[in-house]
Amino acid sequence: MSRFSHAGLEQYCSQVLEKFGVRSDVGLYVAKGLSQASLRGVDSHGIRPLPHYINGLEAGRLNPDPTFRFEETSASTGTLDGDNTFGHATGAQGMGHAIELARKSGMGAVAVSNSSHFGAAAYFSLMAPEKVMIGISFTHADALILSPGGTRPFFGTNTICFAAPCLDEEPFCLDMATTTVTWNKLLRSAEEGQSVPIGWGVDQDGNDIQDPSNVRALHSIGGYKGFGLGMMVDVLCGLLTGMSFGRDISRMYADPIEEKRSLGHFFMALRIDRFVPADEFKARMQGMMDALREEPQMDVDVPIQVAGDPEKQATQDRLKHGIPLSDSEAESLRNLGRRYEIEFPAVMPGVAAE
Amino acid sequence: MSRFSHAGLEQYCSQVLEKFGVRSDVGLYVAKGLSQASLRGVDSHGIRPLPHYINGLEAGRLNPDPTFRFEETSASTGTLDGDNTFGHATGAQGMGHAIELARKSGMGAVAVSNSSHFGAAAYFSLMAPEKVMIGISFTHADALILSPGGTRPFFGTNTICFAAPCLDEEPFCLDMATTTVTWNKLLRSAEEGQSVPIGWGVDQDGNDIQDPSNVRALHSIGGYKGFGLGMMVDVLCGLLTGMSFGRDISRMYADPIEEKRSLGHFFMALRIDRFVPADEFKARMQGMMDALREEPQMDVDVPIQVAGDPEKQATQDRLKHGIPLSDSEAESLRNLGRRYEIEFPAVMPGVAAE
Repeated sequence: MSRFSHAGLEQYCSQVLEKFGVRSDVGLYVAKGLSQASLRGVDSHGIRPLPHYINGLEAGRLNPDPTFRFEETSASTGTLDGDNTFGHATGAQGMGHAIELARKSGMGAVAVSNSSHFGAAAYFSLMAPEKVMIGISFTHADALILSPGGTRPFFGTNTICFAAPCLDEEPFCLDMATTTVTWNKLLRSAEEGQSVPIGWGVDQDGNDIQDPSNVRALHSIGGYKGFGLGMMVDVLCGLLTGMSFGRDISRMYADPIEEKRSLGHFFMALRIDRFVPADEFKARMQGMMDALREEPQMDVDVPIQVAGDPEKQATQDRLKHGIPLSDSEAESLRNLGRRYEIEFPAVMPGVAAE
Repeated sequence: MSRFSHAGLEQYCSQVLEKFGVRSDVGLYVAKGLSQASLRGVDSHGIRPLPHYINGLEAGRLNPDPTFRFEETSASTGTLDGDNTFGHATGAQGMGHAIELARKSGMGAVAVSNSSHFGAAAYFSLMAPEKVMIGISFTHADALILSPGGTRPFFGTNTICFAAPCLDEEPFCLDMATTTVTWNKLLRSAEEGQSVPIGWGVDQDGNDIQDPSNVRALHSIGGYKGFGLGMMVDVLCGLLTGMSFGRDISRMYADPIEEKRSLGHFFMALRIDRFVPADEFKARMQGMMDALREEPQMDVDVPIQVAGDPEKQATQDRLKHGIPLSDSEAESLRNLGRRYEIEFPAVMPGVAAE
């Protein structure tokens, strides 16, 4: 495990994408989205999977030179066809339009069609607080969450992400799927040969199991509640966009890599000053976060955290010390640039690896 | 336990409220909200607590003759001051304005201030599908959910309710708080002297306990995730409305009953036909629900249900057989009308009580 500067990695991603034929505006969105996720400690959606995206690009799944078609369908609504390019670019365009609608009309909602995996939803939601707005992002994903009472997954790790500005720190940002654990945490347990608690996942017959390598579906938080939230997300992202839903959504890894994902997303932006004075909101938002962190602790050594605090801490650490990559992760990234002689960032010196 | 016609009870509520001085438009909203919740099997938010509301009315907590002040703050946003009347009336007004904004501008969002307990959120969300819109309702409540890592509750059983129209049946409606169980379920266990599973609630020191009578806070679904959703709801309902949040929200039962609740709600409506053709949406929404119910079952005797299915079944049963009330519940309701000689509905004949 070594550390690399996030700015160096972002530039590297951007150069790689350009050499692989991705239009520069699209590539910049993707590089920034990946780099931001890595910075926030969300490595599964960060720079590490760049080789996967490049595979999709080369196979024709991802369009390197899309025509974005945005239609403003009323004062506060719009639709955006992403022309099957990277979801990071389509998502940023989608939220950008939602923000523009909100600027004019108080609120904006944009349904995005023909998109692909967009990485971390926080990338888009966090665009809104920069304009003193609340940002809400949703995406569906391929089936992975067990239907309560069923034997197999129906909805995906459908995501809800809510961001709002504060006074003295980066915005409040809740970015969550409705599963009790992440698929990546399960994969790590499988790699390490560890058993996992009952309640994480089930096997191909829907039975609770502790062997992570046989898990075929994850449990939703609160049973029907988390599953119902996943359904809400698919109503917004599958139905309001005209895309597929549930088990019909193409798979990120299992399907032929050349198949277009045709995913949908849904973005909302709300102008805070159309409800309360923006400064008052930011001060009270800060007050809410401060009050929560000052609540009496169960364990004096375990601070109470607000959603998004781990990401803020990771950002502080990684801005200073760089993004950690294992030797094999770094090598697979380095390989992408090798044929175009793009220089990979140097290891950051003098930093203890994770 | 006897059964009473829901229409009879609704009329009775409405007459009682009128005799207690509630303006007729307000009383009709309240009676309809209570009756609908009872019909849907949500007895905790139905007709049963009418005596509690009447107490609040007599103590001056609830304003019987409010002046609703609505301000359209942009093409798709507005604020509504409920003048501290019943939340059922203020909520219905608030969602009505959101629907009207959406009719004109594609989407509407209304922040409601100076309201009170509004009963079941479904009452408001379900107004939108009648206009071929998606309805989303939020309310905060007084602190009852344990902060992850803390020893006491911070956010309330803050509610998210999402409704969308289908082709062949009543709308899809998810109406949920972010706790693993309801407070009422816990109260019932306490009354019955039963112990409850670890994971439901904690005592005054934040320790997991099985004795329901000592529970002082409930766990959120998925730990920080459910708690984060509760925070999102309080950002919308406490901050965007200018009302209190978290532990500063007045208590429904514990505070002096004359204290105004000053609650906030947040309502959104989205015009479906601004995204996709409405008929196509309704057909696909129906298809999603049908597909889910037809998923392979874990237990052949336990059907897979979509969120809202238990409420639809209760409605079928109660439309036909009436609303069940225990003798003491019926007596306490009957008492309200006695001093004004309002006739209580007759017991419905020939029906097996629950």
